[in-house]
Amino acid sequence: MPKISNRGEIMPASPIRKLVPLSNAAKSRGTKVYHLNIGQPDLPTPPEALEALRHIDRKVLEYSPSDGIRSLREKLATYYHRFNIDVTADDIIVTVGGSEAVLFAFMACLDPGDEIIVPEPAYANYMAFAISAGAVIKTVTSSIDEGFALPPVEKFEELITPRTKGILICNPNNPTGYLYTQSEMNQLRDIVKKYDLYLFSDEVYREFCYTGAPYISAFHLKGIEEQVVLIDSVSKRYSECGIRIGAIITKHAELKKNVMKFCQARLSPPLLGQIVAEASIDASPEYMLDTYNEYVERRKFLIDGINRIPGCYSPIPMGAFYTVARLPVDDADRFCEWCLRDFEWEGQTIFMAPASGFYTAPGMGRDEVRLAYVIEKPELAKALEVLRHALEAYPGRTLS
Amino acid sequence: MPKISNRGEIMPASPIRKLVPLSNAAKSRGTKVYHLNIGQPDLPTPPEALEALRHIDRKVLEYSPSDGIRSLREKLATYYHRFNIDVTADDIIVTVGGSEAVLFAFMACLDPGDEIIVPEPAYANYMAFAISAGAVIKTVTSSIDEGFALPPVEKFEELITPRTKGILICNPNNPTGYLYTQSEMNQLRDIVKKYDLYLFSDEVYREFCYTGAPYISAFHLKGIEEQVVLIDSVSKRYSECGIRIGAIITKHAELKKNVMKFCQARLSPPLLGQIVAEASIDASPEYMLDTYNEYVERRKFLIDGINRIPGCYSPIPMGAFYTVARLPVDDADRFCEWCLRDFEWEGQTIFMAPASGFYTAPGMGRDEVRLAYVIEKPELAKALEVLRHALEAYPGRTLS
Repeated sequence: MPKISNRGEIMPASPIRKLVPLSNAAKSRGTKVYHLNIGQPDLPTPPEALEALRHIDRKVLEYSPSDGIRSLREKLATYYHRFNIDVTADDIIVTVGGSEAVLFAFMACLDPGDEIIVPEPAYANYMAFAISAGAVIKTVTSSIDEGFALPPVEKFEELITPRTKGILICNPNNPTGYLYTQSEMNQLRDIVKKYDLYLFSDEVYREFCYTGAPYISAFHLKGIEEQVVLIDSVSKRYSECGIRIGAIITKHAELKKNVMKFCQARLSPPLLGQIVAEASIDASPEYMLDTYNEYVERRKFLIDGINRIPGCYSPIPMGAFYTVARLPVDDADRFCEWCLRDFEWEGQTIFMAPASGFYTAPGMGRDEVRLAYVIEKPELAKALEVLRHALEAYPGRTLS
Repeated sequence: MPKISNRGEIMPASPIRKLVPLSNAAKSRGTKVYHLNIGQPDLPTPPEALEALRHIDRKVLEYSPSDGIRSLREKLATYYHRFNIDVTADDIIVTVGGSEAVLFAFMACLDPGDEIIVPEPAYANYMAFAISAGAVIKTVTSSIDEGFALPPVEKFEELITPRTKGILICNPNNPTGYLYTQSEMNQLRDIVKKYDLYLFSDEVYREFCYTGAPYISAFHLKGIEEQVVLIDSVSKRYSECGIRIGAIITKHAELKKNVMKFCQARLSPPLLGQIVAEASIDASPEYMLDTYNEYVERRKFLIDGINRIPGCYSPIPMGAFYTVARLPVDDADRFCEWCLRDFEWEGQTIFMAPASGFYTAPGMGRDEVRLAYVIEKPELAKALEVLRHALEAYPGRTLS
């Protein structure tokens, strides 16, 4: 039998996916499982989007242009203008979700062996796309004790080699909910300028900034406009992860052409998703505000609740719909597994994402979990109660 | 400004895409352009599919499973059973079109520097996906004079090195319409067995076999079941290229796991497309037969028409909806360009795909074009008339 590729074998196995069979087994035992492990919003897709879907009236569901339907790209441009991101439809290439945007950004900017620097904890699939592209991710580690602030400039400079081609950030951040400050963004601007690097900026959570602190897009930074590669997706902001529509945005003319070659090879992004995405951008201010307010409340509720459980600590996330919390356990991988396999309280248990999967530095995140607040407040309340009881019963508890 | 990737720079520029601006310019001059250049069927999507689309009634357009919706995979399995392809839902992984199936097959089977052998002329994007995966395509050349039959086994064996990991075929073939015979398929089976290779088989045109000769799937070959990687797509058979639903089918357990890692990284295939694809498999026998009969007639009409023009020759394609024809011209690239830029007859011209883009062997296909019969017969008739006049007027005509 022919061998499989080594590149597939070195793809990191997600610590969340390993737990899915345990979660399914718990459910089939009749246990209620609270899912705080996923990034799939539970909120409804905008009615404008569902309405557009119902009214698709085409005889042939044909290819769309490789860079996406023009009217969608124009509408996206006006959307970005609301955030003072000065781009035109010609700077925008529609992709199959934010995932393809990351992959194509890597494919078009990096050659095998090229390196990028990523602050961690970080979204685990960045690593998978880097492996697909043969690129190397080096990490600077931020810590829960510093509230996941950007590490100092020296930590980046220590990692720079002749193969370094870029820095990748996610802002607001998955998994931490951190929002980079103006001074941190300036620090990044200075490094990419000094070393002539790309700044890959994944900003899919921009709608969800809660503290009044400003959202600073990579495109707001002066003097590096052609070095910025913006990654975007409609998935999270309109609760339509399944339509698979994202975008890659760049003002670097040559890079745009290079990205287009990868787009042309895969022919076109999904037609139906594009129609839905275009309508979603017309979602009413009420829809957007309701969604926002719901997350604001859940965030306060979850973080307050976590910090009230003895030995637990979560910094206050400024954006997105995640937090990384510290728990009084010997090993969060083991604890998350134990919750699903060995524990229940009043017929309920809790599914969390062990944070180890978001770090590459050995030992980091060992007592941390990522919690997503994508379930309703009454459910969050029950989940917190279950967590408190689980921590009391867990044999590897570290709090005496 | 940071450099773009070299891998993007070496991606082959499609000779069709270079002509698109000329075609658009012709249209804006008021010239009617007959499109024989594209692989986008003009026939309607099945009513069952459009009906399913209208009845999607979900509040949240959420992620689907990374390997695709179970009911779609089960329905695909029953579809394959009609062709005596003995696979189960567990052997099927849903992808973003046949394109992603090819890319993931390469990513999961091949490491950078690994080689595959492809008979040419071949679908140009195979090369693009190979470059994305860092793999190397070596070609065995089939020729119009042999009716594009599979080159003899020695031609394959000459190319085999320790890095050879597989052979890729497209059957029925794009661009030639060739359908591999039992003895050719046996030849391929013997090679892949002898050298322990993968047999990547792109069979997206299986519904369109016209001559009574049997369609032989790679999965019909005995003794290499775990070496076959089938590439499929619903795009062509249900005229729904825009929904981006394909599949990769393998019985190699380890490979399946490897492919899944790439699938999990990109989260999920398009939800809406999967719903439409599932309904399409229920397309009525009448729909399938009408589509089939339409292509049968167009094929006869086009091939007869081509072969009646002095100096032109097309073998009789046995499947798909393309043919590669020889024209009495010095350079088909130049001729196709000239048709769009410098020629019109009674306000009409013709857009063909120069065949050079389907070959890597230097000089091959120089007087050949690919013609797709994806326009109606009355239009095909006019296109043939335009072609005849163009060939009479073309300065680089080689027929005295």
